[in-house]
Amino acid sequence: MLPYFRQRRVAKRGYLVRPGEVCRYESFVIKGCLRSFIMDEGEHEHVLQLAVEEAWVSDFNSYLNGTPAQFYIEAVESSVLLQVERPDLEALYRQVPALERYFRLLHQNLYLKLSQRIVDNLSLSARERYVKFMQQAPGVAARFPQKHLASYLGMTPVALSLIRKGLKEE
Amino acid sequence: MLPYFRQRRVAKRGYLVRPGEVCRYESFVIKGCLRSFIMDEGEHEHVLQLAVEEAWVSDFNSYLNGTPAQFYIEAVESSVLLQVERPDLEALYRQVPALERYFRLLHQNLYLKLSQRIVDNLSLSARERYVKFMQQAPGVAARFPQKHLASYLGMTPVALSLIRKGLKEE
Repeated sequence: MLPYFRQRRVAKRGYLVRPGEVCRYESFVIKGCLRSFIMDEGEHEHVLQLAVEEAWVSDFNSYLNGTPAQFYIEAVESSVLLQVERPDLEALYRQVPALERYFRLLHQNLYLKLSQRIVDNLSLSARERYVKFMQQAPGVAARFPQKHLASYLGMTPVALSLIRKGLKEE
Repeated sequence: MLPYFRQRRVAKRGYLVRPGEVCRYESFVIKGCLRSFIMDEGEHEHVLQLAVEEAWVSDFNSYLNGTPAQFYIEAVESSVLLQVERPDLEALYRQVPALERYFRLLHQNLYLKLSQRIVDNLSLSARERYVKFMQQAPGVAARFPQKHLASYLGMTPVALSLIRKGLKEE
């Protein structure tokens, strides 16, 4: 499979993808961490994904349809990625049935996580969302600035800071 | 494949799944339409999915993990479904590679739609979201009460009504 993949390094604070570019690759994180976000018309960032080792990152719509990306994908630490282009990955699905299974499960889990996140945003308090995140992904929070984690969890940095302080004091 | 599937009818306003039950089946809509929603602590409904013919519906977390469902799935019209249990679907993946591909693409598309919906909620106006929905799924809106569509699109029924009136007058 390796001939189909290429290695890419992105320096800290460098961008893997920016809006308007076409995101030609699915990228697997070997080392480092990245975040994807969109910028709304008021220039506010909204973090969609916090990715660490063994996650896949892309602007998925752009990757699938060849349309201009909507997301920024920024390396929060200096990162190393393995990248595959869509035609190559489609060819690999045909050659390696286990890979088709792997991506079926990957997309199933991504879909599950995303729908759970929507449900949590509607039904849990900010504090409950933070506690749940820390249980499910204990190692992730420490690698991202507080403001990125707050945005991902749908709260302000001040709210996150107060929640953390409250939990420490209990 | 058919021996693995069973047919189920749900009367109009009947429930396929309710919170606390285990959602044992993935259900394919042959006829009718359904919506899934959650109820928040303030007893407000939030519509997550509007499903018509050829859509799959389930409380996906409950189906995958055997945990109690969080969603209501209600038949908005009298509906006919084909249901498959998880162990049977897993067995079918092994016997029918085309099915594994079908579900990889299905979950890929569900993930894409859901992430696009989050991005749209953050970056488009209510009016833009409505116009986009009507372009992408022109036949769906007419089958659901206005309040369900409004909730799905993340706006109040009054806002939706004003948008529709404004578009008609243009």
